[in-house]
Amino acid sequence: MKKVLITGASGFIGRQVTKQMLERGYTVYAPSNSSALEEQKGVVTCEMDLFDREKLISYLREHKFENLIHLAWYVGPKCHMNFGNADWLSLSLDMIKEFIANGGKKFLGAGSVSEYDFSYGLLREKETPLDNHSLYGQAKAALFKVGGGMCRQAGVDFKWARIFNLYGPYERAARLMPSVICSMLKGEDVKVSPCTKFLDYLHVEDTAAGIAALFDSSVCGAVNISSGKPVQLRTIVEEIARLTNFKGKILWGALEENFADPVLVGANERLTKEVGWSPKYTLTSGLEQTINWWKEHLK
Amino acid sequence: MKKVLITGASGFIGRQVTKQMLERGYTVYAPSNSSALEEQKGVVTCEMDLFDREKLISYLREHKFENLIHLAWYVGPKCHMNFGNADWLSLSLDMIKEFIANGGKKFLGAGSVSEYDFSYGLLREKETPLDNHSLYGQAKAALFKVGGGMCRQAGVDFKWARIFNLYGPYERAARLMPSVICSMLKGEDVKVSPCTKFLDYLHVEDTAAGIAALFDSSVCGAVNISSGKPVQLRTIVEEIARLTNFKGKILWGALEENFADPVLVGANERLTKEVGWSPKYTLTSGLEQTINWWKEHLK
Repeated sequence: MKKVLITGASGFIGRQVTKQMLERGYTVYAPSNSSALEEQKGVVTCEMDLFDREKLISYLREHKFENLIHLAWYVGPKCHMNFGNADWLSLSLDMIKEFIANGGKKFLGAGSVSEYDFSYGLLREKETPLDNHSLYGQAKAALFKVGGGMCRQAGVDFKWARIFNLYGPYERAARLMPSVICSMLKGEDVKVSPCTKFLDYLHVEDTAAGIAALFDSSVCGAVNISSGKPVQLRTIVEEIARLTNFKGKILWGALEENFADPVLVGANERLTKEVGWSPKYTLTSGLEQTINWWKEHLK
Repeated sequence: MKKVLITGASGFIGRQVTKQMLERGYTVYAPSNSSALEEQKGVVTCEMDLFDREKLISYLREHKFENLIHLAWYVGPKCHMNFGNADWLSLSLDMIKEFIANGGKKFLGAGSVSEYDFSYGLLREKETPLDNHSLYGQAKAALFKVGGGMCRQAGVDFKWARIFNLYGPYERAARLMPSVICSMLKGEDVKVSPCTKFLDYLHVEDTAAGIAALFDSSVCGAVNISSGKPVQLRTIVEEIARLTNFKGKILWGALEENFADPVLVGANERLTKEVGWSPKYTLTSGLEQTINWWKEHLK
């Protein structure tokens, strides 16, 4: 039986990755300090705060995992600038060291579009400099480099999934897509930024499928988990309005843009050609699925 | 009275930086787990293993240092590849966080030539990519980026001294210069590599003077502490032979080169023009001083 340790398995991305790995025949070990993950066949949960180093280390020593997918990270207020990013970097390095020492064979970490220097617009794994202004991006890039160095040196496969913009079920309600969807479903007027930016969006199930496919492939190193296609935020908001049959007002520019870079798109040839992934959803079918999920969950 | 905390104050570089900071009127606080640092006026030592996190944190909380020069790092076997580099990265991030939380104002960290992508040869602070193959270099670059991000965000001055090749008193006897000097002083035949590489060497007192000047200047960010001049290793060995009046044989190529890059020199305009540093020693006068020191210490 193949076993995989997944950190952050109860999160927005983690729960979908868990599903994908179960479908691929793995037993998923899911340490978590939240009870958000449902009881499922094939999932072995364990109540744990990963920052309880002693408990984490004895867990790794006990199970001697060969496979590790590390998705957990700081989430919370001002996550791009919070010093918690440095704590997660330290914790992740400790975990990798212990994973290696206990017979680890394959590691996949969650990277981010935010590792890149945003001034390049089209972001490529092997060419674009990693020099983002956010502490989040710097800490993730540091884990990619130092953690990657440790794994390579120990002969452990190191895979790094650079995740781009996401949408889909279970996204936190305060984020752009859920807030627009919920407002439109309720028929409330919608306040948004000017929505002029072009970003790279994937449905979270497609992202998770990309991560799982990367894990099971022979590809190592950094791989953008991205659509490869820029879509203007305005297009997304208008598509949600169409799909929800929204009749209210969209107040463009009522909110500020939260960062300035006009185009961020991830080249995805590594994912499509080397890993062999393709998405299940189009933007329209993905939004439709997400809207249907919110219809059921909006009480 | 100005106070500065110096980690690694008993080390090869640290003892010279300590001297420089004393001359600049600082009281030096020197936590150390070694007794290598002599009792000196103006130095307040403290027996401490920095990895004893509780002790380190209560020390920082007690003294509320505004000035920190962080030189301590992993030294030991295979230091370029050792996982200890990741531990020092984590420790350093914890220390910076606590320093900031307790009123820290100015931080200087010890960077390294090994942060750079060596294929560039002439290494410039703002242009040359940081993408070294060593875990040491990656961990130092990660500290530069993440630690620097934390300090900038908190309004703490962040200075980063990229140290190049060094020589001078108190260098470990197993290293190139001391071993050549000692063998030649004893009249033994000398085994060396082909010594074809061109590197950038400074006398450790000049390096320390550069670090202290950077600390007291208004310059922030990364600054190469380098001579700016490539010197072939062969020239150094021949100069030591001349200065020691050596009559034995030099066995060129009896040892292997330990890395392949033929030229590594650090542009030093930031240090000379912005900080206003200039070296005290030429290569010849620096080697002479070092040889004289070894004459006294070679028993």
